[in-house]
Amino acid sequence: MRSEAHFLELIDSHFSREHDFLALGRGDDCAVLRGGTDYCVTSDLFLEGEHFRRDYFSAADIGYKALAVNISDIAAMGAKPVAFTMDLMAPVDLPDEFWDEFLRSMAGLARQNDMVLAGGDLSRSDRLGISISAFGAPGSTGFLRRRNCAFGDILFTVGDIGLARTGLMALEAEGIKARETLPAAVMAHLRPKPKVMIGTLLNAAGIKGLMDLSDGLARDLPRFTGPDLGANLTIDPETLHNDLHAWCKAAGLDPVEFAVLGGEDYSLLGAVSPFDAGKARSVPGFMEIGTVTREPGIILNGKPFDNPGFDHFSQ
Amino acid sequence: MRSEAHFLELIDSHFSREHDFLALGRGDDCAVLRGGTDYCVTSDLFLEGEHFRRDYFSAADIGYKALAVNISDIAAMGAKPVAFTMDLMAPVDLPDEFWDEFLRSMAGLARQNDMVLAGGDLSRSDRLGISISAFGAPGSTGFLRRRNCAFGDILFTVGDIGLARTGLMALEAEGIKARETLPAAVMAHLRPKPKVMIGTLLNAAGIKGLMDLSDGLARDLPRFTGPDLGANLTIDPETLHNDLHAWCKAAGLDPVEFAVLGGEDYSLLGAVSPFDAGKARSVPGFMEIGTVTREPGIILNGKPFDNPGFDHFSQ
Repeated sequence: MRSEAHFLELIDSHFSREHDFLALGRGDDCAVLRGGTDYCVTSDLFLEGEHFRRDYFSAADIGYKALAVNISDIAAMGAKPVAFTMDLMAPVDLPDEFWDEFLRSMAGLARQNDMVLAGGDLSRSDRLGISISAFGAPGSTGFLRRRNCAFGDILFTVGDIGLARTGLMALEAEGIKARETLPAAVMAHLRPKPKVMIGTLLNAAGIKGLMDLSDGLARDLPRFTGPDLGANLTIDPETLHNDLHAWCKAAGLDPVEFAVLGGEDYSLLGAVSPFDAGKARSVPGFMEIGTVTREPGIILNGKPFDNPGFDHFSQ
Repeated sequence: MRSEAHFLELIDSHFSREHDFLALGRGDDCAVLRGGTDYCVTSDLFLEGEHFRRDYFSAADIGYKALAVNISDIAAMGAKPVAFTMDLMAPVDLPDEFWDEFLRSMAGLARQNDMVLAGGDLSRSDRLGISISAFGAPGSTGFLRRRNCAFGDILFTVGDIGLARTGLMALEAEGIKARETLPAAVMAHLRPKPKVMIGTLLNAAGIKGLMDLSDGLARDLPRFTGPDLGANLTIDPETLHNDLHAWCKAAGLDPVEFAVLGGEDYSLLGAVSPFDAGKARSVPGFMEIGTVTREPGIILNGKPFDNPGFDHFSQ
């Protein structure tokens, strides 16, 4: 980075300062989001060494994914993204070309989702890191929450499960050449597609609850149903992606177990009443995976699934 | 940190999930800020090695200041803080006691300002780092902006200038024992007091613009007036703090120059029309420092002040 001043010019060249939802844009002590609507707010870290490696993430991949994971949280509220702030931790040795590519890619995704960059902060750092907070406006029935399902509700997903984990494993094992051997899996890890349109369609279709899968279906399910309910899942291996099957076959792994443990899917997990599921079923990608049970715990294809806890700190 | 789950319990023990301005608190994909009002939004990084050192910042100092610098931006809008999100980069080796002290101190400052922790993210990291986004509701005349002054307006500050820089220099030179030799300066650096009440009083007093001083008066003034105006400053050395005088005397530095170059003051800089300054003058700590000039640049005590540019990256 040549200088902070130059970087701010680069930001201005990629990101507009104006948006219908902004009463005041970048450049003051704060930006101002216009009132008149509730806002949903999410905040996510994207850190070199923890969430990505520069070995196989290009500058464009990093800029894209740092924002995408935040947009996915807004999609999971059935909401419409409007704005974000970015705190950037920048190693001094990264060249202007890196930042240009990083910002161009992030700005492209922001534009697709009609989001404005409202502000942020910049600091030197040993490692590259991005902290983004993103804001969304309510969908047609307001915001969709977790823990809003009952015994007998239909559980469904939209989007692949386990595919991003396949991509991560392949990239870690084979590096950049995994882009050729398992292209869909690699793209699912590098460039997860936030399902904003799907989220708003599901919202309008009258579903009960929605969340995004970031730690894998098995770990996220109890967060979705709450601790007093469980899930009886039927997952047909044929619904899983070919790249996942190829990876699991080569590694001698069970594809369904691998899929339900897979993190960073950024697919959506939802619940809908069986008496009210007609519209939801017509949403593109809707995949019924089971039902909500009275008993906590997960039954997977007829057998109790022992859910291995995962903790970023204790493991 | 023992585990992520334990840390989230610790968070819950220190921070309420509920607040008048929150329709939905921590624990879902997003939190939800209630509509009906505009929100100002700011975002700041607080990184080990860049913004603080653990040599002389206690866990409580770090937790306090990471939030304080964000609150200061809201104060500078003449606004009322309501909520914040925190992305935390946590080295694995910090003990529970550290986190308890860190969170207790941050929660104390949040409570003083009636702010709720609305969400965030947690990741391992080599170095400790905190990225906070904070939200504020408008004061009595809305939000106070920069670049909203004219030729002849009175410039004023509230709060010490240069004192935090004195503290930083002393801490860097002498370490923790500077807490005894220059206690006010050290506290100004470790525990800057966000001037929320002052900001709202100034807002109600009909001033024209306000900002917080984070990079030093000399560097922040052009950002406040805009590039087409300047400032004629009269700063009486007697208005500067004794700790600053003591430091400058020992180091052979000019106290006024040192003061106007001092960063991280988190004091307020404002402008008010001379025809309308009566109420503002009665706000505690109001200190007239000069007037807005037609010509860009700074005149300091009768002489042109050559403003040395500062860039976090190019220097």
